Amino acid sequence: MKENKTQTDPLPSWREGPTKESILHFVEGVTTEGGVDSVPPLERIAVFDNDGTLWSEKPFYFQLAFALDRVKVLAAQHPEWQEQQPFKAALEDDLAGVLGGGLKAIIDFLVATHGGNTTDEFEHIVSDWITSAQHPDTGRLYTEMVYQPMLELLDFLRANGFRTYIVSGGGIEFMRAWVERVYSIPPEQVIGSSIETKFEMRASGPVLVRIPQVDFVDDNVGKPVGIHKFIGRRPLLAFGNSDGDQQMLQWTASGAGLRLMGLVHHTDAEREWAYDRDSLVGRLDRALDEARDKGWTVVDMKRDWRVVYPE
Amino acid sequence: MKENKTQTDPLPSWREGPTKESILHFVEGVTTEGGVDSVPPLERIAVFDNDGTLWSEKPFYFQLAFALDRVKVLAAQHPEWQEQQPFKAALEDDLAGVLGGGLKAIIDFLVATHGGNTTDEFEHIVSDWITSAQHPDTGRLYTEMVYQPMLELLDFLRANGFRTYIVSGGGIEFMRAWVERVYSIPPEQVIGSSIETKFEMRASGPVLVRIPQVDFVDDNVGKPVGIHKFIGRRPLLAFGNSDGDQQMLQWTASGAGLRLMGLVHHTDAEREWAYDRDSLVGRLDRALDEARDKGWTVVDMKRDWRVVYPE
Repeated sequence: MKENKTQTDPLPSWREGPTKESILHFVEGVTTEGGVDSVPPLERIAVFDNDGTLWSEKPFYFQLAFALDRVKVLAAQHPEWQEQQPFKAALEDDLAGVLGGGLKAIIDFLVATHGGNTTDEFEHIVSDWITSAQHPDTGRLYTEMVYQPMLELLDFLRANGFRTYIVSGGGIEFMRAWVERVYSIPPEQVIGSSIETKFEMRASGPVLVRIPQVDFVDDNVGKPVGIHKFIGRRPLLAFGNSDGDQQMLQWTASGAGLRLMGLVHHTDAEREWAYDRDSLVGRLDRALDEARDKGWTVVDMKRDWRVVYPE
Repeated sequence: MKENKTQTDPLPSWREGPTKESILHFVEGVTTEGGVDSVPPLERIAVFDNDGTLWSEKPFYFQLAFALDRVKVLAAQHPEWQEQQPFKAALEDDLAGVLGGGLKAIIDFLVATHGGNTTDEFEHIVSDWITSAQHPDTGRLYTEMVYQPMLELLDFLRANGFRTYIVSGGGIEFMRAWVERVYSIPPEQVIGSSIETKFEMRASGPVLVRIPQVDFVDDNVGKPVGIHKFIGRRPLLAFGNSDGDQQMLQWTASGAGLRLMGLVHHTDAEREWAYDRDSLVGRLDRALDEARDKGWTVVDMKRDWRVVYPE
């Protein structure tokens, strides 16, 4: 009987309960033809944060691990980094030192380690890294630390006519290098933070050069701005896991008709991590209060997920 | 026999000849399964400039007519405009005076007349305008001055698995208010110039407020940048009509495999307008030389198009 269930259940890694019910109820409402909540397929937009929502983010955002590896590659071209923070800390593998410098230091660090090459070169650099670098605690590839239940949710939504977008504070080009393969989300459905790029005609042909200057920060109030800029439609469903997703959820909630606003609550110290209000990475505080206040869907990872990572 | 032809011809408004042949040849090559130039549907991206490529742009970009109408609505809130250029000229319907101030004056003028409202409000303002304002020479609605042959080309490409994008120097929000209805191009496939928007929580709920500051100029070198930012794939086909499209065509041409780079050459003073190297609006000079040099597809409007506007 259990096997039978698994075959017909679109979300086999989700345990029965109110969280799973809220998802099934939402999709049924939106897709029931002639129903009061029915929405035409072109308008079925679902947006997902990435770090902490589709894959893990501990002990710190995985893209920072990429930047830490990059800083060592680039250090020979930047002798000044030996004495200059946050680069000095990064070169000494002192991530606490990098993070301790605050948001400005982290952004400086990301921008400096992500610029200077062409878009094609950067794509290769990330592809090489993501297929070889291992998580310090689990030893897994980072792409093996995506959440199986969320992969099923992405598939389920797409099977019901939704287009699934990523709306992440992470780098748009960093994500595009691997999310199509891992999440089946194509590059044009990835919205993220970016640095400037500049068109340049070289002898070999035109290139886009990545300039180490912030173009767009797709976090907090930036998320609804990014959604509107790239999609121009209000999503029907938004899933996040931190206060950085609160405005995206508010923006989604403010549309008419049936909506689903979801938060992944990290409650599973055994299979993943447990953290919320006091965490430096992925802090979930005000958004959790608002979710409980408004009856948004809060995933209790420990209770609601049968498995966390793919086998 | 002519009727028979029309029924099976996907491009009935295009006269037989090398231009039409180059389009048919390209689409056949890309879509022939197992062929050397075959491309999977997900990668079939076609990008189109708007002004002068999908609709007319004379005597001046239609969005400037919108801005001219807006400046009068907003003048009561801006007494300083009575004496300040380019607003003074605009209030006196002296468009030459506005254009004579150069690019900076035109951008100032567009930014000032396009900001200050929410995204929802702006969409309504444009929708109202575009369904009532008439072209000064033809008396037609501006949306009745789209090119019938290009509508057929958009349809033909979509019928062959392409996704059709607009990549225009025009305002992204200005276009999104009507292009889905007119070109069947959805908002997420519109790339254009933009001003900043800001998330704001009001008593009535969250809004995005349009701030009168330039965010992105999607013209010249900005077009490949915009394509890469929004789509993250190189197009297979790009169509423009002016030097502002040259870099977009170069970027498209630099990809591997079969590509189509097209320019609409305005050669028809009788049915539309005839202009190229000396025109202030839609100047076509260096891009025309490059197109001839490299064998890109140059549409001779007078020769190649059986009709210009829809009946």
